[in-house]
Amino acid sequence: MYSAVIEELIEKFERLPGIGHKSAERIAFYILEHMSGEDTDRMANAIVHAKKTIHLCEQCQNLTDASPCSVCSSSKRDRSLICVVESPEDVSAIENTHEYNGLYHVLHGALSPMDGVGPDDIKINELLLRLSGGEVKEVILATNPTVNGTATAVYISKLLSPFEVTVTRIAHGIPIGSDIEYADKITLIKAMESRTVMNG
Amino acid sequence: MYSAVIEELIEKFERLPGIGHKSAERIAFYILEHMSGEDTDRMANAIVHAKKTIHLCEQCQNLTDASPCSVCSSSKRDRSLICVVESPEDVSAIENTHEYNGLYHVLHGALSPMDGVGPDDIKINELLLRLSGGEVKEVILATNPTVNGTATAVYISKLLSPFEVTVTRIAHGIPIGSDIEYADKITLIKAMESRTVMNG
Repeated sequence: MYSAVIEELIEKFERLPGIGHKSAERIAFYILEHMSGEDTDRMANAIVHAKKTIHLCEQCQNLTDASPCSVCSSSKRDRSLICVVESPEDVSAIENTHEYNGLYHVLHGALSPMDGVGPDDIKINELLLRLSGGEVKEVILATNPTVNGTATAVYISKLLSPFEVTVTRIAHGIPIGSDIEYADKITLIKAMESRTVMNG
Repeated sequence: MYSAVIEELIEKFERLPGIGHKSAERIAFYILEHMSGEDTDRMANAIVHAKKTIHLCEQCQNLTDASPCSVCSSSKRDRSLICVVESPEDVSAIENTHEYNGLYHVLHGALSPMDGVGPDDIKINELLLRLSGGEVKEVILATNPTVNGTATAVYISKLLSPFEVTVTRIAHGIPIGSDIEYADKITLIKAMESRTVMNG
C-alpha cells in the first residue's frame, strides 16, 4: 500500500538483524517524518564511510580503522597472552571489564559442520601464524559455551599441541549474583565439576 | 572501545525508535561483517532517496512520492467519505483490511496539551479546507482510543459542526477472537455501553 520508495526503505531495514516488518515500518516513518534531510544524509554517510574504512586488523582480525588495531599496536598490552573469541562484540565485552591486558584473536564465527562452517571459514590459520614467533605463552579460549563454541575450543586446543603455549579455557559455572536454585542443570553440573579448593 | 567510525555507526542506529544500544551494536556489526559494499551503498541511497522523494500529499497529507497520492487520485474511491487517522501507519492498517473504499486524512499526531501539541501542530486546518467543497458527506474519526486520540476526535467533531457532514467515530469494544475474561475494564465498559440490538 505504501509508495514503492517507502516500501524499499522498509525492506532495507527489515533485512537487518532483530528488526521485523513492524519495526522497519516504524523506523522508515521516523526517518521520513522526524529526521531532517541533514540527519538522513549523515546517517547514509556513516553507513558508507564505516563500510569503506573498517577492515580486519592484520594481526588480531578484529574490526578496526587502523592497521594494526589500537590493541595490537599498544605498548601497554601483554603480548604473551592471546584471548581467542568468536566475535568483535566479545572483545568489547571483555575490554569493558578493564581487567584483561593481553591481546585478542577474533575468529569471526565458530566451527559448525551442520552449517558448513569448517576450519578454513574462520580465522584459525591466522591464529597459528601468530604463534610461530614464540612470543605467546598462553592462549585463552573464550569461545561461547555452546556446542559450536566448545567444539571450536577443543579443535583449536588440539591444533595448538605442537606449540609451546599453555592453552586455557574460560571457566563455566554459576553466574555471580544469580541463584543456584534457578541455574540450569548443565551449568550446575559444570560448576560442581569445576569446583575450586577454598582452604589452601 | 570500538574505533570512532564504528561508534558513530552504532550511535546513528541507536537514535532510531525501538533500537537500544545492544541492537544498534548488532546492526553495526552485521553491516560491517555481513553486508557487501554494494548492499550498504544501496541502503544509504534508499535512505537519502526516500527522504528526498517522499512528501505529504497536498490533499490527504499522507506520505507519498506522487501528488496527489494514489488514493486521492484514484477514480475508484468514494470521495464522499474521509477517514481521519493519526499516522500513515494507520492508513496502511486500514488499507490492509481491503474493506474501506473512501479517502483518508492524516493528522500526523494527536492533540497533546502536556507535550505542547495544539490544533495548529497537526493537520486539522487542512481537513477543514477539504470539507469546503461540499463533496464530503461523512468524516470517520479513527484516531487512537487513547486520551489524546479521543480528545482530538472530540475537538474535531466540534469543529465540524458548521459543516453539513455526518461525523462518526470507529467502534470500541472487545477485539474479535479475544476473551471477555481478559478484557481490560475500560474496554469492557465501552463494549457494554455500545451494545447493539441483534433481533431486528
